[in-house]
Amino acid sequence: MTILIAADFSAAEWAAWWPALESALPGETLVRDPPDRTGVDIALVANPPRGALAGLPRLTLIQSLWAGVDRLLADPSVPADVPLARMVDPVLSQAMAQTALWAVLSLHRGFFDYARQQAHSEWRQLAQRQAAEVSVGVLGLGEMGRAVAAALLAGGYRVSGWSNRPVPLDGVRCTSGHDGLATVVRDAEIVVNLLPLTDTTRGLLDRRLFETMRAGSSLVNLGRGAHVVDADLLAALDARHLRRAVLDVFEVEPLPVSHAFWSHPGVTLLPHVAALTDPRSAAQVVARNVRALRTGEPLAFRVDRRRGY
Amino acid sequence: MTILIAADFSAAEWAAWWPALESALPGETLVRDPPDRTGVDIALVANPPRGALAGLPRLTLIQSLWAGVDRLLADPSVPADVPLARMVDPVLSQAMAQTALWAVLSLHRGFFDYARQQAHSEWRQLAQRQAAEVSVGVLGLGEMGRAVAAALLAGGYRVSGWSNRPVPLDGVRCTSGHDGLATVVRDAEIVVNLLPLTDTTRGLLDRRLFETMRAGSSLVNLGRGAHVVDADLLAALDARHLRRAVLDVFEVEPLPVSHAFWSHPGVTLLPHVAALTDPRSAAQVVARNVRALRTGEPLAFRVDRRRGY
Repeated sequence: MTILIAADFSAAEWAAWWPALESALPGETLVRDPPDRTGVDIALVANPPRGALAGLPRLTLIQSLWAGVDRLLADPSVPADVPLARMVDPVLSQAMAQTALWAVLSLHRGFFDYARQQAHSEWRQLAQRQAAEVSVGVLGLGEMGRAVAAALLAGGYRVSGWSNRPVPLDGVRCTSGHDGLATVVRDAEIVVNLLPLTDTTRGLLDRRLFETMRAGSSLVNLGRGAHVVDADLLAALDARHLRRAVLDVFEVEPLPVSHAFWSHPGVTLLPHVAALTDPRSAAQVVARNVRALRTGEPLAFRVDRRRGY
Repeated sequence: MTILIAADFSAAEWAAWWPALESALPGETLVRDPPDRTGVDIALVANPPRGALAGLPRLTLIQSLWAGVDRLLADPSVPADVPLARMVDPVLSQAMAQTALWAVLSLHRGFFDYARQQAHSEWRQLAQRQAAEVSVGVLGLGEMGRAVAAALLAGGYRVSGWSNRPVPLDGVRCTSGHDGLATVVRDAEIVVNLLPLTDTTRGLLDRRLFETMRAGSSLVNLGRGAHVVDADLLAALDARHLRRAVLDVFEVEPLPVSHAFWSHPGVTLLPHVAALTDPRSAAQVVARNVRALRTGEPLAFRVDRRRGY
């Protein structure tokens, strides 16, 4: 089969992805700029330029190389009748769990505060509490959210979760629906967002939600930038209602240098690195779906376009 | 029994410790400044002023409220013939494991680098590796070291360990002796020190050891300040042979404002907070040893003075 790779990769990323995909897909034809677009069977996509998937009459699978597909779904030139699969990879979930655990440990144990103290040559010990006394609310219990909840549970934290549909998770108090969100957010000292970006979750982290959060609580956003109303978050931080925000994702990326997040003392900023796809393991996930297509088995992690993930 | 508490506690610490000890030791007489020193049976100590344990003829147990007893053993006025027990508390080991895991995650995932990038409004994604590709060497496999090794293993890291005597630990490649130290340190990308401070470990982290460490590796010192030869560490950082040092303990504490560690770009500095004793759980450990004394059972975690821990 002819497999188009449509991605905004840097040279270094191409150098990692191309051999990983070649070795995982022996016998398939990989192309970047196909001379004949009518022969393309599968598109592997990572932030493709708009229109990159138009005019591919034989296309039978669009496989995202990233976990989130909100950008793809927002592009009207992406054919709506071709099956679309997102990237679900244990390596990716593990990286996300590491980042969430790091952020929660840093908030719980005051490590961000100690960094500020060091900058002022200040020696001061803060009170120390046990993980079991710290409640963390995880918004979104998909692959990523469940991996994060499991890592936090293993770390001894009290974990509650909120998702669109009820998810049974050992040791995690799970809720769904509008009232469930308020309960989770009100009880949590740290809220970790891992929701997919959909019409219903866009702008969910707004003034009203921040007001529902406990005074002195913190937000960790590992979902999408558009989940957050930036001005509302800055106001909640300035009012000291929220203690800190750890932000990995932003509505515009790279985050413009002029944005207030960069220098806000209450913001810890990461350049969208909470979980980068690992080409080696992701290529195996791609290969499984290519095989499924050949053998007529069901595709793994097919996106429900109405639901949005 | 009459139990003397000899500690350099702040008012806030006294306010936490006194009720915790009172409630764990019902029926015992707790004193801070005993009118009659001859009646003291047990001393609970936390950085006691020199001489605080002299002239206590009835003393039958010295119970440290901290894990490390190197300061006590260095005080010649502490009676050498009275049994001495150190504090071993799962809550304390848990806190230490959290700090070690946080430091390792921060080094592995570049979170210290991202903090520096944020300070310069720089958006740059660093390469991401899996935990299984990162080797961590743990020096010291006592209560703390074993808890740290377990947490790192659970996080997916490759863990090796070094201790005075061989310790069998599932999943951890353990060595001992002089050659073992060189092996562990040479193989590790991150070295975490949790050794007790003894005559043989004082100054162990010196130029020779840093030269044995891999180029680009990092040191996490959660043991004692006197394990490290500060000038040698600064030289290794300045030469960029070591990438970073995360330091929680120092030869003089609080660390003097004039010390080069405070502002060194390669140093992350914590004010001796890797694991603070939790009065509530520690009081239970104390109570168990007081009961053992009453019933004639063996004391838990009795210090071998010749060994030094």
